[in-house]
Amino acid sequence: MTITENNIIDNGVNVEALLGAREMLSGAPEAAQFTFAASNRWVNGTHSRSTVNGFVGLGDDQAHRVPYSVDTDHPEIFASEDNGPTPPEMVLMGLAGCLTAGVASVAQNRGIQLHSVTSTVEGDLDVAGILGIDPEVRNGFGGIRVRFEIDADATRDEIEAVVAQSQKRSAVFDIVANPTAVVVDVA
Amino acid sequence: MTITENNIIDNGVNVEALLGAREMLSGAPEAAQFTFAASNRWVNGTHSRSTVNGFVGLGDDQAHRVPYSVDTDHPEIFASEDNGPTPPEMVLMGLAGCLTAGVASVAQNRGIQLHSVTSTVEGDLDVAGILGIDPEVRNGFGGIRVRFEIDADATRDEIEAVVAQSQKRSAVFDIVANPTAVVVDVA
Repeated sequence: MTITENNIIDNGVNVEALLGAREMLSGAPEAAQFTFAASNRWVNGTHSRSTVNGFVGLGDDQAHRVPYSVDTDHPEIFASEDNGPTPPEMVLMGLAGCLTAGVASVAQNRGIQLHSVTSTVEGDLDVAGILGIDPEVRNGFGGIRVRFEIDADATRDEIEAVVAQSQKRSAVFDIVANPTAVVVDVA
Repeated sequence: MTITENNIIDNGVNVEALLGAREMLSGAPEAAQFTFAASNRWVNGTHSRSTVNGFVGLGDDQAHRVPYSVDTDHPEIFASEDNGPTPPEMVLMGLAGCLTAGVASVAQNRGIQLHSVTSTVEGDLDVAGILGIDPEVRNGFGGIRVRFEIDADATRDEIEAVVAQSQKRSAVFDIVANPTAVVVDVA
């Protein structure tokens, strides 16, 4: 909650706690080292179930309020059973969720009351890559487009600046836009 | 189902259909152009809901069997309500689901019967980036580790080769490991 010029701005984000965390972690870089984790169990075919529960942060083991599981699968047009989002769609959903959380947080910090925030995220994927048809085609998305529609007590310029700042601080935007080293092995 | 040396190998993957799709799409590059999409609606604070339903592929509009929604949120230690996986965890779950679907598909194609496939995916995230403490720290994962445990009718070398081939053809592995252009705008 933020009180500005006699108006109460409440997007549901506790900015004071976040600014406090920033100050606390500025002096304790070890505590800022987080490790997130997911476990996965194959069900059948292309269907598997991923679960997140514990993670490491603030120098200690942490846990979600409850474990969260998501089933992923391939679509029926690839002769699968479509028991959940496809894995690339999980990335699109993560990107949307990350940018939207950022929009709410930045708007709160700037004293902007949001009324509604919706977005669509599209990713182009040439399946000639994953099917091994053309080695010149990458497996992942050729490009991603995110479009926000935001109703807020702010000018268009202010809304665009909030979205730009969210993008600048988004973990998933960075994960998608920039390379990350991934090591895969067998126990 | 694959019949090899009088054994029936069934990991639940229809390899014949996938090989047929590869042959069909080799001669129809336009049909191989897919666009996946997610829509997102802000709920409150850092909590939002993403949904996948329709996508484009094989030159036509396609749809999931049913729409799939996932709520994402930030954890309680960031003063949020923890109503779902964090957005970076969505990427870890997508990566696990993608590699596991690939393991089942490649094993099927090689006539290897799987009995169980589990994995853990860990991603290191220094929150000094997203909190704006240190501009030299990236917002996303500093590195990701995936570890498989696989029980299959195969040698360790064969199992490692299946995992390596899955990684080589994984959409989400490529999305995470390599850069993708992301355009974010406001309607």
